[in-house]
Amino acid sequence: MTAEIIDGKKIAEKVREEVRQGVAKMKEETGYVPGLATVRVGEDPASATYVRMKQRMCETLGINSFGHTFPEDATQEEVETLVSELNANPSVNGILVQLPLPGHLDEEAILNSIDLAKDVDGFHPVNIGRLAMKGRDPLFIPCTPYGCIRLLEESGVQISGAEAVIVGRSNIVGLPVAMLLQKANATVTICHSRTKDLAEHTRNADIVIAAIGRREMITGDMLKPGAAVIDVGINQKEDASRKRGYRLVGDVDFESAKEVAGKITPVPGGVGPMTIAMLMANTLRAAQIAQDEN
Amino acid sequence: MTAEIIDGKKIAEKVREEVRQGVAKMKEETGYVPGLATVRVGEDPASATYVRMKQRMCETLGINSFGHTFPEDATQEEVETLVSELNANPSVNGILVQLPLPGHLDEEAILNSIDLAKDVDGFHPVNIGRLAMKGRDPLFIPCTPYGCIRLLEESGVQISGAEAVIVGRSNIVGLPVAMLLQKANATVTICHSRTKDLAEHTRNADIVIAAIGRREMITGDMLKPGAAVIDVGINQKEDASRKRGYRLVGDVDFESAKEVAGKITPVPGGVGPMTIAMLMANTLRAAQIAQDEN
Repeated sequence: MTAEIIDGKKIAEKVREEVRQGVAKMKEETGYVPGLATVRVGEDPASATYVRMKQRMCETLGINSFGHTFPEDATQEEVETLVSELNANPSVNGILVQLPLPGHLDEEAILNSIDLAKDVDGFHPVNIGRLAMKGRDPLFIPCTPYGCIRLLEESGVQISGAEAVIVGRSNIVGLPVAMLLQKANATVTICHSRTKDLAEHTRNADIVIAAIGRREMITGDMLKPGAAVIDVGINQKEDASRKRGYRLVGDVDFESAKEVAGKITPVPGGVGPMTIAMLMANTLRAAQIAQDEN
Repeated sequence: MTAEIIDGKKIAEKVREEVRQGVAKMKEETGYVPGLATVRVGEDPASATYVRMKQRMCETLGINSFGHTFPEDATQEEVETLVSELNANPSVNGILVQLPLPGHLDEEAILNSIDLAKDVDGFHPVNIGRLAMKGRDPLFIPCTPYGCIRLLEESGVQISGAEAVIVGRSNIVGLPVAMLLQKANATVTICHSRTKDLAEHTRNADIVIAAIGRREMITGDMLKPGAAVIDVGINQKEDASRKRGYRLVGDVDFESAKEVAGKITPVPGGVGPMTIAMLMANTLRAAQIAQDEN
């Protein structure tokens, strides 16, 4: 048996097309153009690349983008003052503070200072609190977990009643995706480095979300035949045949896993393209909320 | 084999004694007396009883208690105005809004209006968000889940690395206790009404937390020999031999479970006495935080 490949590129394009149309419709009907502000502190090259990708995607979809960059030694007050200005700016619907921040800044306080209605990254403590609670819904769902759920939905995977195992418990992926699947009525187990027998859990899972950051650690023999496997990992693996000397692989050993799984995301081309697409969807949603309030 | 009984009455008394001594020490050293304000809306008899029990416990331990009661038709503004006054009142360290509130009130907004430093019930959305996040700690842990953890700790149950199954996913018990056990490095599975095979999960669990609100539904054959079982349920069962015609039983079938489990809480006398004890501990902690800030 060979698994159906969940095509993240294609599904992300579908999300982007929805956003493109939503933005065009808003512009046509109200003259308003949604806007995303990015806030970056310091010169981390990966953060710079991510922010640039987000800004370009905004342009592509017709969303205004406003970039703000602070030097590495920016103070808490400087960053929070900018956030308050952006909170008050009616052209800005979403505020994205690129993480990680330099260690001297209080990340939680900065995220907390973002207007809940502009928290398109979904990391405001109140949004996370709502995500964790029954009967409450966050205004915005964090982008990568949201992307994982959308991949499952678009692939026709039944979440309600499913046994779901999350491998990894990061604030950015593992924990919020666990909460989302639980809210959608899956029976969720969160596994991590202290889990005694990981394979025993994954072998009983209808849905496996791999987000532990360890290269190819989930192998085919650890999966239940027919399981849906979402691989959030992005790791480098030496590969002399590539110009740069490596290729990207996930937390799942794709070759063995695809012989057992029913559906599986590749790396790259699975979860990766979804994150920015969902950020764009959240930004449009923020603009729609702001317009509805006017 | 017969399980060791986890004596909630005795452990709660230990917690209360710690609080009593902490209150006395604070009074002696600073002259300050901790205070708890209770806010109740409407005439629900169970809520009235709970609030009265909390007030009496305050008196017993030397904590000031301030009771506030609104009629059933109180407005959102009236309740929020009182909460702001209590936030500003330096004699009040903890604010307890007794839930459930009447349906016309916005519960989340009221909980959100409580000063985070006075949220001794631990239900402020930001506290719940912190509880859910790695590397962040809530100022206060919700009382019943906190009591469950304390019972495990006092009984010498190893949490780190354990397989823990939570049956039930309420905001008040199931979800926060899952987060706490996860933070303490257990591998946590949250089961609920949509779980396909509950027994398969509970049979693999080193720790079972029963908080589903269904009378005696967890039976001995569903447990792993030697497991630690914490029974949060309080249900009435007909019993002609009792004057009132019923007795209280938990979500666990105690008779069969105690033959398989290693440690087990009885109902009553297990989790029950812990909730108020942990509320008192949180109130003392709130007073200590306030004193440290002065």
